[in-house]
Amino acid sequence: MSLTDEVRAAFANTPDPRTRELADAAVRHLHAFATEVGLTRAEWRAGIDFLTAIGHITTETRQEFILLSDTLGLSSLVETLIEPGGTEHTVLGPLYVPGSPVRELGDSTLVDEDAGERVEISGRVLGPDGPLRAELDVWQNASNRLYAVQDPAQSPENLRGRFVTGEDGRFAFRTIRPVPYPIPDDGPVGRMLAATARHPWRPAHIHFIVTAPGHRALTTHVFDAASEYLDSDAVFGERDSLVTSFEGGRATFDFRLEREVPGALHESR
Amino acid sequence: MSLTDEVRAAFANTPDPRTRELADAAVRHLHAFATEVGLTRAEWRAGIDFLTAIGHITTETRQEFILLSDTLGLSSLVETLIEPGGTEHTVLGPLYVPGSPVRELGDSTLVDEDAGERVEISGRVLGPDGPLRAELDVWQNASNRLYAVQDPAQSPENLRGRFVTGEDGRFAFRTIRPVPYPIPDDGPVGRMLAATARHPWRPAHIHFIVTAPGHRALTTHVFDAASEYLDSDAVFGERDSLVTSFEGGRATFDFRLEREVPGALHESR
Repeated sequence: MSLTDEVRAAFANTPDPRTRELADAAVRHLHAFATEVGLTRAEWRAGIDFLTAIGHITTETRQEFILLSDTLGLSSLVETLIEPGGTEHTVLGPLYVPGSPVRELGDSTLVDEDAGERVEISGRVLGPDGPLRAELDVWQNASNRLYAVQDPAQSPENLRGRFVTGEDGRFAFRTIRPVPYPIPDDGPVGRMLAATARHPWRPAHIHFIVTAPGHRALTTHVFDAASEYLDSDAVFGERDSLVTSFEGGRATFDFRLEREVPGALHESR
Repeated sequence: MSLTDEVRAAFANTPDPRTRELADAAVRHLHAFATEVGLTRAEWRAGIDFLTAIGHITTETRQEFILLSDTLGLSSLVETLIEPGGTEHTVLGPLYVPGSPVRELGDSTLVDEDAGERVEISGRVLGPDGPLRAELDVWQNASNRLYAVQDPAQSPENLRGRFVTGEDGRFAFRTIRPVPYPIPDDGPVGRMLAATARHPWRPAHIHFIVTAPGHRALTTHVFDAASEYLDSDAVFGERDSLVTSFEGGRATFDFRLEREVPGALHESR
């Protein structure tokens, strides 16, 4: 029996069938990787040290493992594995903070001073049968490129908010035009990007999580069509269907939600 | 272009060819895993949380990432990928501490009180052309199942030592007979073992790193033929060729080293 098969056999008594399936596949693919490349001890050790450094820089507000998953395209891949239909999903990213303040439709998410260009974002939330009463959880970076969670100089609730639509599904809020920004590149993931000649930049975007009862939660972005880096997003989150114009201080986007299928494997977050 | 190919393209300009090969293979196998199982967001998040917990329990003296690698059989696989020849290699394990005291041939590694059965370990270190002057770096657990590095009640140098053979390659030292022990299972890796109905036990063994100038370093164990768990080592480190008798207070083992091939990919540690 090969070593790989010996390890698979050790996992064969896992009581939960889905856990067993995941463990078996993880072992097969991990061993296939090491065998294919002929992984050396020194390379194995470098991998251990890389993960250890990622573990040690990770805190409540800096999630370097998510950043690794993002920069390897895994986070984006997981979103594409969700049953297609409705607006395309994309990555959550490591900078989401739950519990944003609920704001009135038409209000601004901008709490602090910011010289950024003012924009109004508006549109509708639609289900398969028409408009939906929904909640939009919105977050973005400031003109200094940083999210409030990264920047002690910003109020914690700056450029974040939750908006609840009426029965017509319509939403509108005011904010500043987002700017491209580099993902945090002063840690192990930044060293990986440097060693592989990759840049850390993301195209300008606003994050949304859109939820409505009985429908699959939608985690997505809206991208500025005029932004740099649309073709080389460091976290592979860009989707052409999510790009829209922010010209003239105005951007519109309609979000389309799919009905939730009870018991579906690809449950919403 | 598929998302996987898009990520591979992002790594295509990696200057170092071996780094490029490793990055490309890592992306392909990671994406193949997620695609094959249809990894859900909740499962992805559980994976992130698992790695985060491993990162946070890892310290200078507790290396939970190595424990994960060991229990997934990856560490053992890396040893089997080394060019075959000589004594079989097996896992280093997370409990190796460099810098053990140099002891005289015939001395004991036992520093503290221990009720364990006394044994003498002896044998020779051989190269392709006969006996070699070599160093053996030796470590093992005490009768309470713990290594000194895990146990504040033990002297730091208990049951560890380095021995230098003469030109005849002969070594001998005294110690206690090792006992089976569970790998540390009070952390995330222990929770993985529990969830997959696996036990944490390792068969009784003594660790060796054998080095001689011009030869490949050998990292291996010698196992007690009378031990439990020889067929279900929690870290897949057991090799039949490394099992010997400890009966009658005596174990003998000859280590065979291969010549180092300059510039070989599978360099020694």
